Amino acid sequence: MNEFDFIYQIFAKAQANQQGQTQANTLANIIQGIGDDAAVILPKADGQQVICTDTLVQGRHFSGDWQIIETLSFAIGYKAVAVNLSDLAAMGATPHSIVLALALPERLANQRWVLEFANGLFHACNQFGMALIGGDMTKSHELMITVTAYGIIPQGYSAIYRHGARLGDKVYVSGTLGDASYALKHAHSDIGQKLSHRLHIPTPRVALGQALLGMATSMIDISDGLYQDLSHVCLQSRVAMRIDLDKLPMSNAMQEAPLQSHLVYQLTGGDDYELAFTLPADVLPPEGLGKITCIGEVVAQAEHRPYLYYQGQQVTEQMPFPFDYLPDLKGYQHF
Amino acid sequence: MNEFDFIYQIFAKAQANQQGQTQANTLANIIQGIGDDAAVILPKADGQQVICTDTLVQGRHFSGDWQIIETLSFAIGYKAVAVNLSDLAAMGATPHSIVLALALPERLANQRWVLEFANGLFHACNQFGMALIGGDMTKSHELMITVTAYGIIPQGYSAIYRHGARLGDKVYVSGTLGDASYALKHAHSDIGQKLSHRLHIPTPRVALGQALLGMATSMIDISDGLYQDLSHVCLQSRVAMRIDLDKLPMSNAMQEAPLQSHLVYQLTGGDDYELAFTLPADVLPPEGLGKITCIGEVVAQAEHRPYLYYQGQQVTEQMPFPFDYLPDLKGYQHF
Repeated sequence: MNEFDFIYQIFAKAQANQQGQTQANTLANIIQGIGDDAAVILPKADGQQVICTDTLVQGRHFSGDWQIIETLSFAIGYKAVAVNLSDLAAMGATPHSIVLALALPERLANQRWVLEFANGLFHACNQFGMALIGGDMTKSHELMITVTAYGIIPQGYSAIYRHGARLGDKVYVSGTLGDASYALKHAHSDIGQKLSHRLHIPTPRVALGQALLGMATSMIDISDGLYQDLSHVCLQSRVAMRIDLDKLPMSNAMQEAPLQSHLVYQLTGGDDYELAFTLPADVLPPEGLGKITCIGEVVAQAEHRPYLYYQGQQVTEQMPFPFDYLPDLKGYQHF
Repeated sequence: MNEFDFIYQIFAKAQANQQGQTQANTLANIIQGIGDDAAVILPKADGQQVICTDTLVQGRHFSGDWQIIETLSFAIGYKAVAVNLSDLAAMGATPHSIVLALALPERLANQRWVLEFANGLFHACNQFGMALIGGDMTKSHELMITVTAYGIIPQGYSAIYRHGARLGDKVYVSGTLGDASYALKHAHSDIGQKLSHRLHIPTPRVALGQALLGMATSMIDISDGLYQDLSHVCLQSRVAMRIDLDKLPMSNAMQEAPLQSHLVYQLTGGDDYELAFTLPADVLPPEGLGKITCIGEVVAQAEHRPYLYYQGQQVTEQMPFPFDYLPDLKGYQHF
C-alpha cells in the first residue's frame, strides 16, 4: 500500500462512519461521496444553495514551524472546516457538505499526522452535521488546505448579504473580539495561553446565522478584523456606521490586557469567526444562542465606512494612542 | 489600491463580462457571485448535482521554474479549470460554475501575470458555459490553484460512475493517449513540441460526457494514466478488462516515436483528460463528437484489473521490453 492509498483509506473510512451524514442527508441525498471523479448529491427541496471556499496556508493561517504543525494536526483539520462553516453561517445557510483539496508535504504524509488531521476535520463536520463528499490530494512543499463548503437556505428564505444594511439599523456582533489575534501574537503570555483555543478551535456561529434568516438586513463573518469587515458592509450597503469602541465585547482574559492593546486587536484582529450583522431598530436579536452585543448603528455620514466613537466622542487623529491610529485601520491584509 | 484589491478587481470585472454566465444561468440562477462571504445559486430544475475539486501545484502539475510559470500564465489558468471540467465530463454533467482558491506567491502578484492567468481561466469557463462565482486568495511561497466545479445532471438521468461496467461491455477511449506526458518528458524534442498544446491546453470532453448519459455503463477521465484509471473502473465494477495495446489511439506526432516509447506513455502517461467508458456490446458510441476508439472489452478473469494483449497475445513478463514492464504498470502516483 503506498502513501496515497493509506491516506485515501483514512478519509474513506471516516466518511463511511460519519454521523454528520445524518443531518446532511435530510437536506440532500448524498448519492456518491469519495471515490469517483466527482461527488453527486440530490437536493430534497427547492431553495437557494450556498458555496464558499477558503484556503489555509502554512506560515500564514497557522505556524510555518514543522514541529508546531506536527503538534497541531487536529486543530488544523478542524479549522480548515470551521472557517468555511463561518462563511456559510454569515449567509444564514445550513451546512451540508464539503470537498477537501489537500496539498501535503512528504514530511506530513504519515499515518499519525493524517489521522489526527482527519479527526479534527471530521470533528468539525460531525459537530455541524456536514459530510465530506469528495476531495483531491497532491504532494507539495508547503501544507495547504482548501475546503469548499456547500450549504442550503431553507425554502422561502433568502441568504443574508453584505449589501442590505439600512439607515437606522443597529449593528451587532456575536461572541468576543480580538482573542484569536491576541493569542497568535502573544502565544507565550498568560493571556495568550488562555485565549489559544479561540485561535486554534474557533466556533463558527452556525445556529445564530440560521436564526437570523428573515431578520438580519446584512451579515458578514469577522475573519479579517471587525473594522475591515464592517467596511465591506458599509461599502456594499452604501451606508456609514457609528461604532462605539467602549461597547466592543471582550473576553475575560482580554480584560487583563491594557486598553491600547486590546482595542487594536478587537478592531483589527483577524480569525475571530464571529458574526457581525445589522437588525432594524425594532427587531431584537435572538436569545439563547450565545453572547450578542449591540456595538453601534447605521448612520448618515459622508463616507461609506465605520465612524469610531469612544465614550461618546468621535475618535480623531488628535487623540493619543491608540486612538490616533484607529482611523487608518486596515484590518488584516491578504497581501 | 493594494495588491489584493487589484487582483479582486481583475476577477470581479472579468466575471461581470462573462459570456459563460448565459449558459450557466439556464441551469441555475446565479444570485450572488464574487463579493460576499459565499456565492448563492438557485437551481432551476430538480436533478442530481455534481461537485469536484482539483489542485494544480507548482513543480508537480506544471513546471517549478519561475520563468516558465511567468510565461505560461494563460495556460495555467486555463488548465486549472479544464482538469475540473474533465471530472464533470466523466460524470456526464453539464458544467455550471466554479469557485477559485488561489495561493499566489508575491512574485506573481502583479497585474500582468494575474491578468493573463485570469484570461486563461475565463477562456476555459466561457468555452464551456461556466461562470466563476466565488473564490479566496492567499499569499504563499508556491503557486497552488484549487478549482472546485459544480455541474448539473439533466432531470431524469443519473450520473455515470466508475462502478457500472458489466461483463461483455466494450471499452472505449476518446481522443489520443500519452501526448501530454510525452510532451512533458520530451519538452525540447520535435515530437514533444508538436504535442505541447496537449499538455498545456487539454480539451475536456464535455459534450461527449453529456452524450453518454443513459448510454455508458461506466466512465472515468484519464488523468493518472489509462492503465491506472481503468484499474479503478475494474476494481469498483468488480470486473476484468481485455485491453488490446495495438488498438490504443495515437496522435500523428506520437506515431513518429518508437513502439517501446509511445506504448509506455499511452498506458501510463497522466494528464490526458480523455474519457474512458464502457458501452453494452449492442450500443454504438455517439458520432460527431471527436475520435472514439474501442480498445477492448469487459471479460471474466480472476483479478479485477486490465489484462493487456498485443497482436492477439496476452502480454507476459517473458516478453521483451516494453512488454515485460507493462504488467506492473502503476500509472501516475500522487505520492
